[in-house]
Amino acid sequence: MRGEGFGALLSYPEAVKILKENAPSFEKAEEVSLSEGLMRVVAEDVEASLDVPHFARAAMDGYAVLAADTFGASYQSPVKLLCLSSIKPGEIPDIEVSHGKCVRISTGAAMPAGADAVIMVEETEREGEVILCHRAVAPQTNVVGVGSDFAQGSVVVKANTLLKPRHLGALAATGVSSIRVLCRPRVTVISTGGEIVEPTDHLPIGKVFNINGITLSTALREYGCEPIDFGDVEGDEEALKQALKKAVNDSDLVILSGGSSLGEGDIVVRVFERLGRLLFHGIAVKPGKPTSAAVIDGKLVIGLPGYPTSALSNFYILVLPLIEQMLKVRFHIRSVKAKLAKKVLSTVGRYEFLPVRVEKGEVYPLMRGSSAISSLSLADGFVEIPENVEVLSAGTEVEVKLF
Amino acid sequence: MRGEGFGALLSYPEAVKILKENAPSFEKAEEVSLSEGLMRVVAEDVEASLDVPHFARAAMDGYAVLAADTFGASYQSPVKLLCLSSIKPGEIPDIEVSHGKCVRISTGAAMPAGADAVIMVEETEREGEVILCHRAVAPQTNVVGVGSDFAQGSVVVKANTLLKPRHLGALAATGVSSIRVLCRPRVTVISTGGEIVEPTDHLPIGKVFNINGITLSTALREYGCEPIDFGDVEGDEEALKQALKKAVNDSDLVILSGGSSLGEGDIVVRVFERLGRLLFHGIAVKPGKPTSAAVIDGKLVIGLPGYPTSALSNFYILVLPLIEQMLKVRFHIRSVKAKLAKKVLSTVGRYEFLPVRVEKGEVYPLMRGSSAISSLSLADGFVEIPENVEVLSAGTEVEVKLF
Repeated sequence: MRGEGFGALLSYPEAVKILKENAPSFEKAEEVSLSEGLMRVVAEDVEASLDVPHFARAAMDGYAVLAADTFGASYQSPVKLLCLSSIKPGEIPDIEVSHGKCVRISTGAAMPAGADAVIMVEETEREGEVILCHRAVAPQTNVVGVGSDFAQGSVVVKANTLLKPRHLGALAATGVSSIRVLCRPRVTVISTGGEIVEPTDHLPIGKVFNINGITLSTALREYGCEPIDFGDVEGDEEALKQALKKAVNDSDLVILSGGSSLGEGDIVVRVFERLGRLLFHGIAVKPGKPTSAAVIDGKLVIGLPGYPTSALSNFYILVLPLIEQMLKVRFHIRSVKAKLAKKVLSTVGRYEFLPVRVEKGEVYPLMRGSSAISSLSLADGFVEIPENVEVLSAGTEVEVKLF
Repeated sequence: MRGEGFGALLSYPEAVKILKENAPSFEKAEEVSLSEGLMRVVAEDVEASLDVPHFARAAMDGYAVLAADTFGASYQSPVKLLCLSSIKPGEIPDIEVSHGKCVRISTGAAMPAGADAVIMVEETEREGEVILCHRAVAPQTNVVGVGSDFAQGSVVVKANTLLKPRHLGALAATGVSSIRVLCRPRVTVISTGGEIVEPTDHLPIGKVFNINGITLSTALREYGCEPIDFGDVEGDEEALKQALKKAVNDSDLVILSGGSSLGEGDIVVRVFERLGRLLFHGIAVKPGKPTSAAVIDGKLVIGLPGYPTSALSNFYILVLPLIEQMLKVRFHIRSVKAKLAKKVLSTVGRYEFLPVRVEKGEVYPLMRGSSAISSLSLADGFVEIPENVEVLSAGTEVEVKLF
């Protein structure tokens, strides 16, 4: 199908579109405890099974009163009320407040029958059992009404919410102790290449340590997936076939790295064509051109470049959008806007992922070659440069995604 | 010390300063595998124990040549070189390239002796064993030099780096398989208040479910701590004393919620004064005024408000800066800049934490009361309004921190 060069390269937006069309729909869910729910994705709308709060309560420390009793009160002519007792948070009030009476009440305590407002303690003075009210309060003042936080039956947390502490708190408020979340997509990561070795004391000439295994696995974990690190498959076609068959069987998505460029040892595309349907080979992205994809046994398989920087940058721009689609969630990589400290030349027709440092509010390009992981490890983030841009002059404001 | 009102409120910056002065220094470290290192904080600088790469290698698929042999080559008058053999990634080259010769080489493969450049395969043509070079290349073209990614002895990852996939990749590149990281600070979370209950089918009037336990514990976990959820201590002074003694003994930092305002049931400040040294009580923050702090047995203890929104908002503006100081790291809550959809009135003299929604690029305030967790769970983020601001008019650009 291809000789010693790539054919016409697929544009970045087309590549994303094709990947998204072939990504699995994903609905597997499981029940986890609230505390395990942090950063998981809610599987379905959760409705409040009761009103929150389910009783009217005091919003302030003060006295529960009939609002009408206080009308006309001022510091100069206070209204006097007889204090009957006091109610603390957690207590069931067994008293009724009637005309001329009041009850001492603490923040969060249930309002006693009869009372319809709370006058703040700071707005009163106490003389034995008599309370002097220095201010008039309207009905419902300093009272938290039944269901004012969540009404029974209302949606507390929507499906596909990425659960943060505040959502877990809202669920806890309704008495929920476990929550149905989407399972983590299982993604097998396979490294290819006879040059890859696992950590050892003596590294032979020609060999390099496996970098993509750890970067891709941990990036997947950071974004809600369960990585399965397959390790390295040596450059034998049969071994790769067997590995891929196992991987598509075991997982929801498969990511390979290496073996997708045009060297004599490249076998990924050949194996893709034998085992399934090749979607594309070669995309107009810099770095990261030698990227391929296929569908094998109904599962999407993505062949990323072997170079560590290209593999990881393509994770951010190609794989992360797929995970977001599968989980129907947005992870929002945080970003800052800042000005370029120097001119950047880009290649027209290639979508560019440019690693940068941000220093004193200025953006410095930091591309040390796509083979160098330090291009990324020394960077604070990256700037995406669209296909049709040739030059970004110094001083241009750019959005830096802080990965 | 205090009657029925707070004394002069401590300003927000002063409160942060006092907390930081009393926060523990933190140097406990442990060794974890690289894959467990994700989002952990590096304890000490890590230096490269070898050059990366530790051999010169081809950056492109092509032919390893003596650059000088190609000088003058063009498409019209190609230079002819005899191809001796080929080298694949991972192979140890056992051949020397001399004048007039070349070797087929794949991306990532070790350069053979003698060769000092790689001419890309696309710039050549092959006629049997003879390679026609269509272009001249300078020495070192398409060659990745020894130590060009990391030189032996150079710092790969600095102390106090928050480990992301790219840093783990850089460590893997140097053959590291485990890494010394700071331990997670142990933080005990104690809820107080007789109204708090754990999830149950029937919630009595006057009682509420424990919200702060889950919000504070998971927020601590999100930001690198190991939370110890102590559960709820009922409003008895002796019980709280015992709980605090155990907590300061077991943990690096203690966070209470509830019991720090001025109701009759409030006991936290009394117990703080009995057991240790009260640092402050009452801060000029909205919401979140009834906040206190103390040092007990040398450990910092922070008393947050009982209201879920106040407790969690104070976590973000008071506790998170402490964790950052302890771990000497910045977590960078991601933020967006956008314009206010409507006017916001703020209280002069109070630092305000304003929950907001961001819709179609506009910022809508969303404060439903500090007792309502929905104030936070329905929000996309928060805007911080300094003490000296009274009005933010519609259209003002604000920074929304997306928690």
